[in-house]
Amino acid sequence: MRLSTYFLPLLRENPAEAQIVSHRLMLRAGMIRQSSAGIYSWLPLGLRVLRNIETIVRAEQDAAGAQELLMPTVQPAELWRESGRYDDYGEEMLRIRDRHERDMLYGPTNEELITDIFRQNIKSYRDLPKNLYHIQWKFRDEVRPRFGVMRGREFLMKDAYSFDLDLAAARKTYNKMFLAYLRTFARMGLKTVPMRAHTGPIGGDLSHEFIVLADTGESQVYCDKAWLESDVLSTEVDYDDDLEPFFRQWTSLYAATDEKHDAANCPVPPDRLLSARGIEVGQVFFLGNKYTKAMNVSVAGPNGEPVVPEMGCYGIGVSRLVGAIIEASHDDAGIVWPASVAPFGAGLINLRAGDAACTEACEALYTTLNKAGVDTLYDDRAESAGAKFAAMDLIGLPWQIVVGPRGLQKGVVEVKDRKTGQREEMTAEAALNRIKAAR
Amino acid sequence: MRLSTYFLPLLRENPAEAQIVSHRLMLRAGMIRQSSAGIYSWLPLGLRVLRNIETIVRAEQDAAGAQELLMPTVQPAELWRESGRYDDYGEEMLRIRDRHERDMLYGPTNEELITDIFRQNIKSYRDLPKNLYHIQWKFRDEVRPRFGVMRGREFLMKDAYSFDLDLAAARKTYNKMFLAYLRTFARMGLKTVPMRAHTGPIGGDLSHEFIVLADTGESQVYCDKAWLESDVLSTEVDYDDDLEPFFRQWTSLYAATDEKHDAANCPVPPDRLLSARGIEVGQVFFLGNKYTKAMNVSVAGPNGEPVVPEMGCYGIGVSRLVGAIIEASHDDAGIVWPASVAPFGAGLINLRAGDAACTEACEALYTTLNKAGVDTLYDDRAESAGAKFAAMDLIGLPWQIVVGPRGLQKGVVEVKDRKTGQREEMTAEAALNRIKAAR
Repeated sequence: MRLSTYFLPLLRENPAEAQIVSHRLMLRAGMIRQSSAGIYSWLPLGLRVLRNIETIVRAEQDAAGAQELLMPTVQPAELWRESGRYDDYGEEMLRIRDRHERDMLYGPTNEELITDIFRQNIKSYRDLPKNLYHIQWKFRDEVRPRFGVMRGREFLMKDAYSFDLDLAAARKTYNKMFLAYLRTFARMGLKTVPMRAHTGPIGGDLSHEFIVLADTGESQVYCDKAWLESDVLSTEVDYDDDLEPFFRQWTSLYAATDEKHDAANCPVPPDRLLSARGIEVGQVFFLGNKYTKAMNVSVAGPNGEPVVPEMGCYGIGVSRLVGAIIEASHDDAGIVWPASVAPFGAGLINLRAGDAACTEACEALYTTLNKAGVDTLYDDRAESAGAKFAAMDLIGLPWQIVVGPRGLQKGVVEVKDRKTGQREEMTAEAALNRIKAAR
Repeated sequence: MRLSTYFLPLLRENPAEAQIVSHRLMLRAGMIRQSSAGIYSWLPLGLRVLRNIETIVRAEQDAAGAQELLMPTVQPAELWRESGRYDDYGEEMLRIRDRHERDMLYGPTNEELITDIFRQNIKSYRDLPKNLYHIQWKFRDEVRPRFGVMRGREFLMKDAYSFDLDLAAARKTYNKMFLAYLRTFARMGLKTVPMRAHTGPIGGDLSHEFIVLADTGESQVYCDKAWLESDVLSTEVDYDDDLEPFFRQWTSLYAATDEKHDAANCPVPPDRLLSARGIEVGQVFFLGNKYTKAMNVSVAGPNGEPVVPEMGCYGIGVSRLVGAIIEASHDDAGIVWPASVAPFGAGLINLRAGDAACTEACEALYTTLNKAGVDTLYDDRAESAGAKFAAMDLIGLPWQIVVGPRGLQKGVVEVKDRKTGQREEMTAEAALNRIKAAR
């Protein structure tokens, strides 16, 4: 993509309305624009990151045996009356009346709707287990929306719902999702700690929330320092294995939110205790038969007897993750994207857009990079070198290739690693290989 | 994907509520389920088709120079008051009041919101032209939703909005979208005819609608028989060319909706006149400065003087297309998917799921097909051969591979072309090559 034509409205100044760094950087880097309180448009650069996050979430859900469908945003109130939540949910639920005066709502979550789909279509134990997910926009009418996409009203969430025949099978599914979540966040370059959590209004009696460690995080957490060395991606484990040992191992290390941490009785000695800031990016719940009972769901068991399925639900804040990743990975100059979610693989800076040699070298490199599968943002604008460096640092692509007249005379370009800040001169070919090798 | 675990609730009987064939087949093939009048959940099979259609739409929009962003579903009423459409739009607009008693709405279209984004972020003629699109759920509160996804209330639409400095540039953009639309529908295996159209409540003074020819279409159309031989995909034309000759050529052949066709004064002789049924799947509009003027938008021109941009807007009914493609491509046994949008590339039928040799051959073929990039739906259920044939015909994948004990003794499987119905015995390797070659 050429910056001269790309819709990327960068801001030089910090917007006054943004209180936290991810909100500031998303506005400055032209990723989002607010249309109403807590409701955002995703501009092209922001949408690319959102889609990359979705892709990782989807891949791990699929690998864990969950199947994707897509439920609508607008739901009928009747289903929520069946579960008893229509009155319980309070003002956060955006209630809508249609032209025929029917009570509808903009879904804040989907337990009722998926349970209705299940009971209409699944009748036999032979069709279990089922784990169904979607990635869909939700609405929660927060009284004070703030922090950009971290606490918006219209937000993108992945929510999965599982149905199992008995407790043991439901526990297996819970463990699969537990693994999927750890892998999902790790693939986005995040250090994430699962913490035992309250179930809240969702119900059920077993729950973990997943907290990303970030210096600028919203809440205080305490955990064993061993978490910092944990690496789930290098753990040899398969979704079809017995995951109970894995689950035990990953929940044996101490981790607690501020509310639950009791310094006087903490089992971890002070020298091994990490006090850190965190951001919640996902939560998993074992629901039992709260919804299946309330909504009269059963399947025919092996001997024809009705069996009430055990449910679980599993949420990931997809749009929230965009903010969380920035909170966990930025510096004074801007965003530092992990390669797996970066909106482009590399940025190409033409230091002198009016110079024929520079332009020719850039065009050749631009073509080569894109052909090699390195999606490249090419700054071909007639701006100063300083403005281009600042813009590219702000956007935070993993690699920058800088092409200038002096380097070209020596036959080299400059390659900058955004994360380390390290710069190195090399031939254009070597630059391409460096970037390809790092993927 | 294995059918034994896939969430694919097939129906044997025609559902009473479905009046048209695409609605019937989408319900029977387990693609959608209704949650309220005109509001559907997309089950896994249906979602796959929807995503394939999106992919084609996106590819042609990108190729034509449009850039993707994503606007929210919920919009503030103020913007619509600025354009004057808040009161004009009528009951089809789903009006919402949030917890702070602010007037909001579920967007039925996005002219106001995109114009607001434009005026906030684009200030100079140097940033034009811009053509911005999104693929997002819309809501229109139809008084009588019907025909499944063909006339739903919550529906997926691609809408693009272009901004140009002057009429000549706006016309170029219109022509690019005109080409993109013809290519988009052709890539989905559809025969589509553009027809001059009224602009309606959208405004502006130039518009074409794109009508898919389908025997079971909703409206009557008349056109020159030469349309049947037209093939835009084999036309040598580039988005960067001067597209005016292309536009002239493609609008020179007669085509008119029932309302506009005047049999007495038709320029086409009867033997060349085609009377057919059609379905509208897209429409393009030149808007002029209706919205930019109403919303006080201008950019600084080359000499600093303010210029009011000329707009166009361009819609494709993405979810409607799923129904339209089925209307255009089905037979008595079920859906006949064009390969480009088929939910899976091939279906694999194990005629005797309990037989070791059959199962071994199927498993090997299943692995090979998926590895070769042919996404395969494997019917590994313990059902009768008849039920499996009927299910696979209903789902309508382009190819079926049938593995049975008698064939295996001869070292062959049966390959069926869903469209022609032709069956042929060949080795498993030849079957794989046949399917790969047809892509």
